[in-house]
Amino acid sequence: MIRFYNGRLLRFTGGMRLTDEELWTDGGAICYVGPTPAALPEFERSIDLGGDVVLPGFKNAHTHTAMTFLRSFADDMPLNDWLYQQVFPNEAKLTPEMVYIFTRLGIMEYLSSGITASFDMYVKNDAYAAANIDSGFRTVICSGLNNFDADPENIEREFLKFNQLNELVGYRLGIHAEYTTSMERMKYMAELAHKYKAPCYTHLSETESEVRGCVERCGLTPPQLLDSIGFFDYGGGGFHCVWMSDEDVALFAQKGLWAVTNPCSNLKLASGIAPVDRLLDAGVPMAIGTDGAASNNALDFFREMYLASVLQKVQSGDAAAGGADRVLEMACVGGARAIGLNDCDDLAVGKRADLVVIDLNRPNMRPLHNIARNIVYAGSKENVRLTMVNGRVLYERGEFFIGEDPERIYAEAERMAKAVRG
Amino acid sequence: MIRFYNGRLLRFTGGMRLTDEELWTDGGAICYVGPTPAALPEFERSIDLGGDVVLPGFKNAHTHTAMTFLRSFADDMPLNDWLYQQVFPNEAKLTPEMVYIFTRLGIMEYLSSGITASFDMYVKNDAYAAANIDSGFRTVICSGLNNFDADPENIEREFLKFNQLNELVGYRLGIHAEYTTSMERMKYMAELAHKYKAPCYTHLSETESEVRGCVERCGLTPPQLLDSIGFFDYGGGGFHCVWMSDEDVALFAQKGLWAVTNPCSNLKLASGIAPVDRLLDAGVPMAIGTDGAASNNALDFFREMYLASVLQKVQSGDAAAGGADRVLEMACVGGARAIGLNDCDDLAVGKRADLVVIDLNRPNMRPLHNIARNIVYAGSKENVRLTMVNGRVLYERGEFFIGEDPERIYAEAERMAKAVRG
Repeated sequence: MIRFYNGRLLRFTGGMRLTDEELWTDGGAICYVGPTPAALPEFERSIDLGGDVVLPGFKNAHTHTAMTFLRSFADDMPLNDWLYQQVFPNEAKLTPEMVYIFTRLGIMEYLSSGITASFDMYVKNDAYAAANIDSGFRTVICSGLNNFDADPENIEREFLKFNQLNELVGYRLGIHAEYTTSMERMKYMAELAHKYKAPCYTHLSETESEVRGCVERCGLTPPQLLDSIGFFDYGGGGFHCVWMSDEDVALFAQKGLWAVTNPCSNLKLASGIAPVDRLLDAGVPMAIGTDGAASNNALDFFREMYLASVLQKVQSGDAAAGGADRVLEMACVGGARAIGLNDCDDLAVGKRADLVVIDLNRPNMRPLHNIARNIVYAGSKENVRLTMVNGRVLYERGEFFIGEDPERIYAEAERMAKAVRG
Repeated sequence: MIRFYNGRLLRFTGGMRLTDEELWTDGGAICYVGPTPAALPEFERSIDLGGDVVLPGFKNAHTHTAMTFLRSFADDMPLNDWLYQQVFPNEAKLTPEMVYIFTRLGIMEYLSSGITASFDMYVKNDAYAAANIDSGFRTVICSGLNNFDADPENIEREFLKFNQLNELVGYRLGIHAEYTTSMERMKYMAELAHKYKAPCYTHLSETESEVRGCVERCGLTPPQLLDSIGFFDYGGGGFHCVWMSDEDVALFAQKGLWAVTNPCSNLKLASGIAPVDRLLDAGVPMAIGTDGAASNNALDFFREMYLASVLQKVQSGDAAAGGADRVLEMACVGGARAIGLNDCDDLAVGKRADLVVIDLNRPNMRPLHNIARNIVYAGSKENVRLTMVNGRVLYERGEFFIGEDPERIYAEAERMAKAVRG
């Protein structure tokens, strides 16, 4: 058992609240949350929080982890040139070994940012899953069916395989996007969703031209088109959701579909600002994601949380828009539920021990008028004191405990990046 | 002498370039930049960079440092309520002791973000200057004349006093803003500028309503109005510069006035997005500032640099807008020259030893396709390995060397913040 004491917990169930309780973990789960009892059991380790605050870990609800290989490779160029001249040709060079190393690199970045789980859509999922398991990190893979896949049926095999593989790995159904996937293949995915009564996800309404193209071709917006074929009949959601009509928002609210916002990526690729307030006010459940490092270029949840709130202010012209509390709940709770990790959504007995300790003894956390606002509006990676996934400390005070020497991962990443550059 | 070796330098004069040189400091100045010589002198300390990169420190070209006392105190509320119900009444409670402590707190945050100098407009300048000198930090004070000042002539006395006080402190002329300063007082400031042939600064065109109000009252935009009374005859510039007409931009370019952009504050207060590309393309010299923690809420230059670029992309709808190189030059070089610290603008012999070492052995800096883009688009405070001001290491690997125990500053800040809350 590991004991966290002498600090505070930020708990969410029944409304966000700060408590003076302590927290114990046993194996991969939280086994006690409450006041300090008169008699203490023996602990493997006792962590004196020194007043620091424990949160459920941040959940990165949309990403392409191994895209770290393209970080700062091609920036400041038009979107289409970036995608077709830089991203696609270089992705074709990726080997499983590269996906493994660049995933491990991305996981290190997640841990240093307090992220405890990811929802990842990319390629070479065997290598990807191995990198997560070897690091001790939690992930849910999302299939990304599109027209380039040689073998669509592989998704059903992967769905069955990866949902059985390891307690740290899950698998959800999804397509890459409406504009990269034929109607036949979208219908195949909707049938799989029905067969397994499973939620279904996709990149959705990321750019204005994507929505316009879909309406021109089909007379429906992407959410409406997918809904019309039963794609969302068992839930799921969309990544980005920048260009959502009122009808799209109502559809998401009515079906309880998750809208995952990716503010940094949407800025960097000039896609726009997602209507986070409008979605939340309509009752749409929301989560936050970093997207891949090729279009961000960091995997830094503090930057995402900050922008998820303040972009609402500048877009509406109203400094009262957005809000730190709702953003923090999206990051910790929403993200977990969006990807089916309902046992990772709070600090409570029986939940998985996926948590982050925020260091309050740094200048940007003082004074402590309001912890939630300090975290969302002033927090940074320097405040991540410790990240625990499934009961194991994987990151603490700048050091990684991921079963591999970081220097070897950096060296391999550089060698492989050089091979990509050619 | 202190030696930095086995790494890289990012130098700016004659175009940004990365070199393999080493750098030595002697007292407060840089005394050698070049290849490793055959014979080495004795050093007080030799710092093995291990491949890390040295940059001229970031210059925070607009801030109100002691406003850390209001961090996360009042957020997510309309701008006018925030300013008149929260900021002004609480500022009235500030004592010199409070300004001293909250300035020391802000300086710690600067150092942890790689900032080596600030351009500060606030109150109780004696306490403010003492906090900088005691910390070993470099600052230029900007007067903030407005209608509430009981004694406008005090600015001339401060100008003479603070420019003589200490090598770490400078003083420039300025008013708070056109909308808070009578024409008589603005003319007084313009006369002072003429008397001392000194540049003059002000908050400028921050909000749309500010510009509209000025045009309605005077028939001129704020830049035009100030220029018409000779305010800018010896240079200077404006903070924020969000709502600039083409004529305003041309005026700034023609007179070489500095436009200081504050992207985070402009988002959080819903003021808008400054036309950074339009200003730079017109030849306006630019710098970057954090503004105060009350409206940011961090003093984090990585966040400012990131947004100074990517907000241009989303505003224009063009992913090719902005650009990491020009932002990094604004941060390191522009900021120095904007506030008259021309001897702090580069890594070269004879320049002041104000520099930051960026830790590249962190996951967010890998792979190293492009260092400048990694810093601007993926960098964070975790990458600040060391910050040196005037030849003294004030921050290294998370530790502060500022002549005071951080815990005491935190404790005092909390005690004083409680007094403000009442």
